[in-house]
Amino acid sequence: MPTTLFSAPARLWPAYATALPRAFAEAGLSVRLLTEAPDPAAVDYIIYAPGGPLADFRPYTGAKAVLSLWAGVERIVSNPTLTQPLARMVDPALTEGMVEWVTGHVLRTHLGIDAHLAGQDGIWRNHITPPLARERGVTVLGLGELGTACAAMLAHLNFRVTGWSRSPKALPGIRCLSGPDGLAQALARAEILVLLLPNTPETENILNAETLAQMPKGAVILNPGRGSLIDDAALLAALDTGQIAQATLDVFRVEPLPADHPYWGHPKVTVTPHIAAETRPASAARVIAENIRRSEAGEPLLYRVDRRRGY
Amino acid sequence: MPTTLFSAPARLWPAYATALPRAFAEAGLSVRLLTEAPDPAAVDYIIYAPGGPLADFRPYTGAKAVLSLWAGVERIVSNPTLTQPLARMVDPALTEGMVEWVTGHVLRTHLGIDAHLAGQDGIWRNHITPPLARERGVTVLGLGELGTACAAMLAHLNFRVTGWSRSPKALPGIRCLSGPDGLAQALARAEILVLLLPNTPETENILNAETLAQMPKGAVILNPGRGSLIDDAALLAALDTGQIAQATLDVFRVEPLPADHPYWGHPKVTVTPHIAAETRPASAARVIAENIRRSEAGEPLLYRVDRRRGY
Repeated sequence: MPTTLFSAPARLWPAYATALPRAFAEAGLSVRLLTEAPDPAAVDYIIYAPGGPLADFRPYTGAKAVLSLWAGVERIVSNPTLTQPLARMVDPALTEGMVEWVTGHVLRTHLGIDAHLAGQDGIWRNHITPPLARERGVTVLGLGELGTACAAMLAHLNFRVTGWSRSPKALPGIRCLSGPDGLAQALARAEILVLLLPNTPETENILNAETLAQMPKGAVILNPGRGSLIDDAALLAALDTGQIAQATLDVFRVEPLPADHPYWGHPKVTVTPHIAAETRPASAARVIAENIRRSEAGEPLLYRVDRRRGY
Repeated sequence: MPTTLFSAPARLWPAYATALPRAFAEAGLSVRLLTEAPDPAAVDYIIYAPGGPLADFRPYTGAKAVLSLWAGVERIVSNPTLTQPLARMVDPALTEGMVEWVTGHVLRTHLGIDAHLAGQDGIWRNHITPPLARERGVTVLGLGELGTACAAMLAHLNFRVTGWSRSPKALPGIRCLSGPDGLAQALARAEILVLLLPNTPETENILNAETLAQMPKGAVILNPGRGSLIDDAALLAALDTGQIAQATLDVFRVEPLPADHPYWGHPKVTVTPHIAAETRPASAARVIAENIRRSEAGEPLLYRVDRRRGY
């Protein structure tokens, strides 16, 4: 019976105290689930989220894996005491939520919904036939689990989708580009740009004065990825000149976004409060259970993190 | 060489004067295209939209078909002089535009985008995990070309989609209901209701005080179908009581919607100016050409109207 330590902020425990035993039972696993480990060396698995009590992984000498509740693992990979195998969370519900947020805000932009909401003044403005999705270029930066799912849904809606990733990929119905030259091409096609890159040293400020200038004038930016992907001062400057027409931002360098931040109330910026993708305990618990089952059966972990790449 | 009369409002002619000859050439057809017919008996085909010069079809004794540029044919079917075969327009671009409008406004409702747009005040409101599409019931009334395409896209986005039509249908991934009993069940599942029924005597005021009361409290209505489907006074009353939380309306009994209509500026109503679906001349001309080719080859017309049903 593997011993499993739940180490995450205490507010998460009530939901997982129900969801994890249910998922273990569904997977046919007998698991001893603890929230404190008097004997760290006896712990087989650590379920982990930042902000919990655990900072030093060295005493957990017998741990077969650290199973993150978060998709983003940038904080934990920089912890030098972590030597155990690490698996990211890829929660199908989180992916679904992200696809819904991205598709909804792409269509909001595409259809010009904001202008309709602001134009409830009795004037019938139907003289412009809006373009169809097949005439609209959308670029997704980042083709991991989330970016791929969003790109596929946008392609299903007929958008002209370009995807960009660090290493080359091939996806049906999506023009896939990679590398630095590919980035400039991907940006040039981005009437609407969706940022879904991981947070790594290479992606920090990937949207800066130079790359913003490579986009078509009047482009729209959606960032449900990571706050660090955007040079905030450069984006504010590009909004002022009109190079960028609008930005909808769900993630920020500091969260909650401080009340005096210029993004709040900016006429060309919509702030959403980190809601694009949320891990749901029921489905996340099933992923944890599956990884414990795999590990106990000698099978490879799902979503194992490559420490060198950082994701 | 069939003689074809274009009878539609003059403002449509410039676009079709280019699009039709191009489509005829693509289809390998030689067509004599006229905007006036000195000899009505010599006309083989009539391309028709309401508001043009033609009101009496009796002189067109040799006409093999009347080819509507409009999807909705309620005005023309009530013309007693029309005895020739009639085909509706089913423009693939119109269907695409409709799917985009419906999907965009369903996601706008589902994600609560209006509340985010109104909440750019520095307060970080992320305490509520929104439901996923798989937890949200959307009902589409009308499973013709447009309703079926919209229902399929919403099902692809994981919404719990119920479809209702007068006669029974079966569609993959969609709970299909029909008839009067089915209507009450379909409305009971409609957290979001999409109206895509044709305008017939049976569908007039299908959304009235009684049927609005069959919907879940706080439901949202999207009407890109026909203005006559809604009893406007009953909808305004249901918005006042909160039975209906919000309505987004693209079609009206009188268009343009008069500037003093209570829908304009109503805090729970969004008016869009009949833009959900527009026929595009290039693709509509290809449908016209295909029907002339079929008729000349002795094949059945596409989208032939059943006069008895009215669509």
